[in-house]
Amino acid sequence: MSVSCRHSFSALGQRATPPIIARLMTAALENPRLLSLAAGFTDNATLPVETFGEAVAALTAPGASPELLQYGTNQGRPRLRQLLAERLAREEGHDPSWAEAGRLLVTNGSQQALYLAMQVLCDPGDIVLVDRPSYFVFLEMLRGLGLEARSLPVGADGRLDLAALDAKLTAWQRTGDTARIKAVYLVGYFSNPSGRSLEVDEKRGLARLLSAHRLVVPTIEDAAYRQMAFDGSAGAPSVLALEEWSAFPRLYAGTLTKPFATGLKVGYGYCTDDEWRSRMLHVKGHQDFGSANLNQAVLERVLGDGSFDRHLGRIRPAYARKMQVLHAALVEGGLQRLGWSWAQPQGGLYLWLQAPADADLGLDTAFYRACVGAGVLYVPGELCYGDVPAKNTARLTFGVLAEEDLREAARRFCYVAAGS
Amino acid sequence: MSVSCRHSFSALGQRATPPIIARLMTAALENPRLLSLAAGFTDNATLPVETFGEAVAALTAPGASPELLQYGTNQGRPRLRQLLAERLAREEGHDPSWAEAGRLLVTNGSQQALYLAMQVLCDPGDIVLVDRPSYFVFLEMLRGLGLEARSLPVGADGRLDLAALDAKLTAWQRTGDTARIKAVYLVGYFSNPSGRSLEVDEKRGLARLLSAHRLVVPTIEDAAYRQMAFDGSAGAPSVLALEEWSAFPRLYAGTLTKPFATGLKVGYGYCTDDEWRSRMLHVKGHQDFGSANLNQAVLERVLGDGSFDRHLGRIRPAYARKMQVLHAALVEGGLQRLGWSWAQPQGGLYLWLQAPADADLGLDTAFYRACVGAGVLYVPGELCYGDVPAKNTARLTFGVLAEEDLREAARRFCYVAAGS
Repeated sequence: MSVSCRHSFSALGQRATPPIIARLMTAALENPRLLSLAAGFTDNATLPVETFGEAVAALTAPGASPELLQYGTNQGRPRLRQLLAERLAREEGHDPSWAEAGRLLVTNGSQQALYLAMQVLCDPGDIVLVDRPSYFVFLEMLRGLGLEARSLPVGADGRLDLAALDAKLTAWQRTGDTARIKAVYLVGYFSNPSGRSLEVDEKRGLARLLSAHRLVVPTIEDAAYRQMAFDGSAGAPSVLALEEWSAFPRLYAGTLTKPFATGLKVGYGYCTDDEWRSRMLHVKGHQDFGSANLNQAVLERVLGDGSFDRHLGRIRPAYARKMQVLHAALVEGGLQRLGWSWAQPQGGLYLWLQAPADADLGLDTAFYRACVGAGVLYVPGELCYGDVPAKNTARLTFGVLAEEDLREAARRFCYVAAGS
Repeated sequence: MSVSCRHSFSALGQRATPPIIARLMTAALENPRLLSLAAGFTDNATLPVETFGEAVAALTAPGASPELLQYGTNQGRPRLRQLLAERLAREEGHDPSWAEAGRLLVTNGSQQALYLAMQVLCDPGDIVLVDRPSYFVFLEMLRGLGLEARSLPVGADGRLDLAALDAKLTAWQRTGDTARIKAVYLVGYFSNPSGRSLEVDEKRGLARLLSAHRLVVPTIEDAAYRQMAFDGSAGAPSVLALEEWSAFPRLYAGTLTKPFATGLKVGYGYCTDDEWRSRMLHVKGHQDFGSANLNQAVLERVLGDGSFDRHLGRIRPAYARKMQVLHAALVEGGLQRLGWSWAQPQGGLYLWLQAPADADLGLDTAFYRACVGAGVLYVPGELCYGDVPAKNTARLTFGVLAEEDLREAARRFCYVAAGS
C-alpha cells in the first residue's frame, strides 16, 4: 500500500525556527581553536565540585531518608521555598517573614518561570515591553510564542528615558496598540547583555509612568544575576519591594544555580498574584508536574548549611578578577583609541561594547566573519533588541574562559577591530 | 493615585484550571491516616540511594572533570543519547547501530517530551486519538492545550476493537472531523492506568487501519513502564520497529528515572521525523534550553557501568511481589465475589478494577466519599477517559505503600465495596 504521511504543524510549531545562537555554535564547532567570548557559560574553575559531592554524601549517608530520589511536588520543596523566601526578604531589607513561601514556584531554571509567565498571559499578537537591550533568549521565546517585543527607550547613558516612553505610550494609545500590551519584562541586575542594573529611581519612575497611562500590567523582574554582584550587595530593591509597583501583579524570577552550579538547573519565581501563579502552576503540571526533587534537595541543603553562601564568597572575587582581565586586555589592545566604549560592570558575566556609531557588528557582516577567522566569537548586540537594533554593539562574556584565554581572545578581537 | 490592575490571561491561561488530582491530594492531607492507593509514586524501600551516592562520589572524586556541574546542551548529553540509542536497539531486537543518537532528545521526564510534541503538532480544536482508558495527566494536558481526545474503541477484553474503529473513522470522514485528527497517543507497555500492554497484532492492525483511512499522522508511543516488566522482557516491538508504522512520523517517549529514581526526572523522546524533532527542540530551547546536566551525567554513568540494570534486577521482583500482595488482599477481601474483576498485570504499577456495570466509583459519589472516610484513596477510573467514561472503574497502585499498608488499604477498600 502506498501512503503519504499527513504532516502539519501547529501555529506554534510553525514559528519554532532554529535559534540564532545555533549559528554561533556551528561556527565554534567548525573552528576548534576558536575562543568563545559568546557562550554565557559559567567559570569551570570555580564550580563547587567538592561542596556538591559533600552535600550528596550527607544526603545519601546510611540512615538518610531516600525521599530526595522520590518524586517531589509540582510547586517545589516546601523547606526550599521557605529558605528562598527568607533569603529574598533579607535581600529586600525586610525581616524574614516579609516574603511568603507559598508565593514561590520552583522551576527548571528561571527560564521555565519566564516561559510559563508568557504562556498564561499572552496570546499571539500581544505586546511585551522589554529593556533596551534585553536578554536574547527571552526575545526568541517571545517570537516563538508569536509575541511582539517593544523596547523601553533609553538615553545615551543606557538609563530609561521616561520622557521618550511617555511620548511612545501616548502614541500607542492613539494607535490602539496599548490594549495589546500584556506584560513588562525587566532584567533588574547586571543585565544580560548590558551588565547594567536598574537604579531605584528608574524603577520607581517607570511604575509611576505606567500607572499614569493606566498600564498596570503584569511585570516580570528577572534577577538571574543578582547574586553575582562582585561586592556581594543586593543592589536596589526589586519591584517586589517598591511601593510604586504595589498595584502591579509581579513575578520575580531568580536562579539558584547560575551562581552555584548551572548543571543543577534550579530556578524559581516569586509571584505576588494568586491567580497568575496558580495558572502558571497548572501549566507546569502539564509540562513536567514538578522539577527534579534531587536537585532541589541539594540546593535546600547547601542553602541551609551555609555552603551556598561560602561558595558565593569564592566566586565573586574570581569573576571580578576575570572582568578586570578582559577589560584590561581590551584597553591594552587599543579598542578605546578606536572609538569603542564600555562600562565596567559591578557584577554578572558580561561586557557590553559600543563601537563607533557607523560600525556594524552583526551576524552577516565582514566584522563578524573576520572575528571567526581570527578565532574569536562574540554575541552580536543586534540579537538583543526587541525592535530596532543597534548594530554597533557586542556582548563579550568573561565567565567561561580562563584568564590567559581571555587575554588572547581580547587580542584577536582588537586585531580585527583595528583592521576594520 | 488610584489605579486598577489590568489583569487578563491568554486563551491558554484561561484553560489552565486546577488539576483534578489536586482534589485527591487535598483529601489525603485532610486525613493523615489515609492510605493512598492513588499516588503513582514509586517504592521508597528500593530507591537506589547507595548506587546514586556512589555514582556522584565517583563523578566528583578529586581530579574528575567539573563539567557535570556546568550547563549541558539543549538536546542532551551525546554519550547518554548514544547509550540510550543502543539500549533501545537491543530492546527492539536489533543490533546497536539500528537507532540513532541524533534522533533522541533528553527531557524533564517523559512528560516534557509529550508536551513538546503536542505543542508543535496541534492547535486548539484539534483531535488526538488515545487509548481507552488513557493516562489522565496526558488527558489533562490535552484539555490545557485546548485539544480534544477521542478514544480508540476497545472490546470487553480491553483489546483494540478495529472494526468499531473502522466504523468511527468512516463516520468522522463524513462529519469532517478526520481533518482535525493530528496525532495518535498510545501507552504501549503496562499502561497507566490499565496495566495492559498492546500486543503486536493490535499495533500492526491499528497502523493498517489508519493507513487505509489515509490517517498517516504523527504517532506517540509512551513506553514509560517498559523497563518495569516483572520478568525483564522488552515485550512487543514498539511502533519504531514495526514495518506497518514505517510511514508514520513517530515519537517514542521513555523515562530513565521511573524505574531508577523518580527524583532525578530524566526522560527522553526518540523521534523518527527530522522536522518534528527539530521543532520540539526549538521550543525546548525557549522552555529551558536543556535539562539539568548533572542528572544526565549520573544516568549516563549508571547506564554505562551496569548499575542501572542491576537496580532493575532488584526492583522487578519487588514490584511483582507488591502486585501479588495487593491482588491477594483484594481476593481475600471478597471483591471478586461482589462481582468485581481485574487482570494481574505483568509489569508497571497498577491494578485496574472493574466493578459491576451499574457501580459508580467517580469522584463525586458516595463510594468515593466512603473510601476517604474509611481511610483509603484510589484514582476514579472516570478520570482516565478521553471521552465517555466508564464509571465503574478504579486505578489502584501497588507502587508506593509497604506490604502491610497495601493489605490494610485493600481491607478498607473491600469493606466499602461490601457495604455499597
